[in-house]
Amino acid sequence: MASELNGGGEHRTPEGRRGRGGRASRRAARQGGGTASLAQLPWGQPHLPFPPMTLLSEDQIEAIHAASLQVLEEIGVDFLLPEARTVLKEAGADVDPGSERVRFDRALVEEKIATAPERFTIHARNPERNLEMGGNRIAFSAIASPPNASDMDRGRRVGNTEDFRNLLRLAQYFNVIHMTGGYPVEPVDRHPSIRHLECLRDVVTLTDKVGHAYSLGSERIRDGMEIYRIARGVSPERFAMEPSMVSIINSSSPLRLDAPMLGGIMEMSARGQPVCLTPFTLAGAMAPVTLSGAVVEQNAEALAGLVFTQAVNPGAPFIYGAFTSNVDMKSGAPAFGTPEYMKTAIIGGQMARRYKVPYRTSNTNAANTVDAQAAYESVFSLWGAVMGGGNFVKHAAGWLEGGLVASFEKFILDVDLLQMVCEFLKPVEVDPDSLALDAMREVGPGGHFFGAMHTQERYRTAFYAPLVSDWRNHQAWEEAGSPRAWQKANAVFKQALAEYEPPPLDPAIKDELDAFVARRIEEGGAPTDF
Amino acid sequence: MASELNGGGEHRTPEGRRGRGGRASRRAARQGGGTASLAQLPWGQPHLPFPPMTLLSEDQIEAIHAASLQVLEEIGVDFLLPEARTVLKEAGADVDPGSERVRFDRALVEEKIATAPERFTIHARNPERNLEMGGNRIAFSAIASPPNASDMDRGRRVGNTEDFRNLLRLAQYFNVIHMTGGYPVEPVDRHPSIRHLECLRDVVTLTDKVGHAYSLGSERIRDGMEIYRIARGVSPERFAMEPSMVSIINSSSPLRLDAPMLGGIMEMSARGQPVCLTPFTLAGAMAPVTLSGAVVEQNAEALAGLVFTQAVNPGAPFIYGAFTSNVDMKSGAPAFGTPEYMKTAIIGGQMARRYKVPYRTSNTNAANTVDAQAAYESVFSLWGAVMGGGNFVKHAAGWLEGGLVASFEKFILDVDLLQMVCEFLKPVEVDPDSLALDAMREVGPGGHFFGAMHTQERYRTAFYAPLVSDWRNHQAWEEAGSPRAWQKANAVFKQALAEYEPPPLDPAIKDELDAFVARRIEEGGAPTDF
Repeated sequence: MASELNGGGEHRTPEGRRGRGGRASRRAARQGGGTASLAQLPWGQPHLPFPPMTLLSEDQIEAIHAASLQVLEEIGVDFLLPEARTVLKEAGADVDPGSERVRFDRALVEEKIATAPERFTIHARNPERNLEMGGNRIAFSAIASPPNASDMDRGRRVGNTEDFRNLLRLAQYFNVIHMTGGYPVEPVDRHPSIRHLECLRDVVTLTDKVGHAYSLGSERIRDGMEIYRIARGVSPERFAMEPSMVSIINSSSPLRLDAPMLGGIMEMSARGQPVCLTPFTLAGAMAPVTLSGAVVEQNAEALAGLVFTQAVNPGAPFIYGAFTSNVDMKSGAPAFGTPEYMKTAIIGGQMARRYKVPYRTSNTNAANTVDAQAAYESVFSLWGAVMGGGNFVKHAAGWLEGGLVASFEKFILDVDLLQMVCEFLKPVEVDPDSLALDAMREVGPGGHFFGAMHTQERYRTAFYAPLVSDWRNHQAWEEAGSPRAWQKANAVFKQALAEYEPPPLDPAIKDELDAFVARRIEEGGAPTDF
Repeated sequence: MASELNGGGEHRTPEGRRGRGGRASRRAARQGGGTASLAQLPWGQPHLPFPPMTLLSEDQIEAIHAASLQVLEEIGVDFLLPEARTVLKEAGADVDPGSERVRFDRALVEEKIATAPERFTIHARNPERNLEMGGNRIAFSAIASPPNASDMDRGRRVGNTEDFRNLLRLAQYFNVIHMTGGYPVEPVDRHPSIRHLECLRDVVTLTDKVGHAYSLGSERIRDGMEIYRIARGVSPERFAMEPSMVSIINSSSPLRLDAPMLGGIMEMSARGQPVCLTPFTLAGAMAPVTLSGAVVEQNAEALAGLVFTQAVNPGAPFIYGAFTSNVDMKSGAPAFGTPEYMKTAIIGGQMARRYKVPYRTSNTNAANTVDAQAAYESVFSLWGAVMGGGNFVKHAAGWLEGGLVASFEKFILDVDLLQMVCEFLKPVEVDPDSLALDAMREVGPGGHFFGAMHTQERYRTAFYAPLVSDWRNHQAWEEAGSPRAWQKANAVFKQALAEYEPPPLDPAIKDELDAFVARRIEEGGAPTDF
């Protein structure tokens, strides 16, 4: 069951924490860190308690929709996998013989939009970690896919298995991380043919949350599904009826979907597993320099992916992904957490709701270190993602350098930011008790409330207790060596790793997993010629 | 005339900048920094192009209103100035003889709410800097009143005239700073008896924007009004008809207004000058530990001030100030930019709109240095302030250490944050040209847009160019010495000071100002026994 976080109730300091989801939620909180001394929010998905923000009028949204249909009808999209073109031809798309180009008439697109589900449950191997995807629910996933890792002690290094596992442990430890969305760093010390097998075994062993598998060809994604199925301990039939993982599909913008990704969709959608199509439409580079033009391209690509998932399997779960940002026009470098990024994050949400499908967005920045820039670009990103109605917020913790680095300190900073966002989303109580007239009568003009009964009864759980913020006065802070925020984050990630406990896993499932992975490794894994 | 910033049009890089407010706006932009090489937005007030965010239902807002009326009726507020109690007694309030306590029946409060204006123009000495206060307009004011200044070269020091003047120069230089809201640092090297005279002469000489005078007794605020009147070159009669400055009134929470502040209101309101009453209601310290309780106290104090301004002079401009935050319940230290702060900033806006008066909020943080914490707490503050419908955002640039320090680097960081917020508020264009179908036809699947005509025609002005963000790749950044955001900010503040030019001032006005200040200094200034 997907428990709710900000439905009400108090939940704050280590002593005073009270969850909302009842016994299941409290047990999950313990597993996630409840035995630990680090204060954190209990397990549970936050929801947006107010309508998502909108920047465009309905007419403007329709104009973008209409322009996207025109792109799909007149320009079309290249589908690089022959089998995918066959499926689309059968579904009624206009497929050029001898060409990769596929064009869609608007009736076909509208018909397919109608069959994609508005929301669905994604089943984790621990049912208490199940997630609701869609509606007003939010799920934060850890950083995914950077080639490098860094911390302030050892610096920046190429991704490796140790960092990969430690980042998974952090993703499991912190309750505000609801899922993993890919490898938290690419462990290049594992051979590409068998990397997916070893990595996904780690994912389902070190975490019990919803996870992801890469659509790098049919074979890998089939292996990934099998690993998640085994970890859940369910039959292939039941697996095909219950979304149990996700796969991100990145289009090769502009207007192209490559063969390995299309193979992934074919396998995932056929078995009812959720596909999140995310065009990487950098305005001025792979997309038009105007924001609305870039969103048209993003939308056309997302719709092409949506149509394909529904052509493969009507009703297959689909998530609309948006990743439109701008580039630095002086250098071509991608920029994130910019005003333009915030706007497209909010407009992307409007488009996804137009199609009644869940919406994926991200917590991004382009900083090279965990300084003020990393923080403000991230909070601006979250402003757009959260106010824009993001259901699946990817790269929610750990992203640095425009996604080239998984930073351990940034992971902790982000956990704190995400927890603050969750607290912000929690409704303010307004009742006779909280209106506090008796306390004001007791204290009266000129007094103070520190000693008031009303304060004493509530102070332990009244306010969010941050992981990183240092509120000491200047002298105390200076005497402590004038620490920066990243130094506190550095200490916290080490403490979390020290306190991490692997989630329980049925030994029979563990054996089945090991046997599957061993067999597939023996078979040579998956070919690397993609 | 108060020009508008985000009504439309393009305005971006140094070469490509185009203002919106026509000739006046462009001239103002030149004065503010248009001759300079630093890229910045043109002069103009942004506005909120969508409805302000709400967190409480109308019923909940009425519950807070009703509880506040009960506080005013049953508990009352201490007014420490006898003349103020006389005014209130004459207006119909319940004044205890031989006590400072004043109680208000609800009919009186409702009657006075009705006479406060919903919006008004504040006249600067340069008419192009006039500000609209209220409605959906936003004005950002520089940091005010910290006892210390700091920069990364010389560290933290007690406020002094040199820093005071340099911070004023920054406030003048950057177009996104619309006004000053008090001394940007307290220059303690000036004698308290004459400080207000010398400081306000600096304010109206070094800047031509709307300014502030402290309500530290009747004499000082009268001097302040006279200085702003002389600087504008208008008659006393015209001055009394045109708001020309502001004064912040802080209540001594809980439920008390001290004599110097009340003296300020009497003088300001009598001459039709805007008073902003801002209770400093830290939940758990000077206010109830519950957020709604703290807002009730804030609201009761703000309404007491509102009633008093209208009793002094019906129709006197009034600004509803909110500064409710929480304390760290372990240490009692004030916290800022917290989830609780964001919530009360948004609820405060709902209360101000309930009373149809302009709303003042702030850009705050409790960090000790310009690190990630300073940035995320500030952006969270701005999220609450801007989405909550703040009209007058105080401490918008430079605030550090919970207001104990004016930081030169933080000033620049904040200018960048404010500019990003302005860009975010600028509507996204959706028209055939921006939808970019022709560009997509030209580029086609698999191409790129760098060389497209559509890109070439627009790239110079397409995106916000940040002052601080460093988007270089890791290698280039490392070769540059791995600079942090504060280092860039450090360089920018020095460049801005080097490029600063004093705004023109009529020599006759300059002489009149000097004569007035000289005479009042000769008279001994104002007594310091408050």
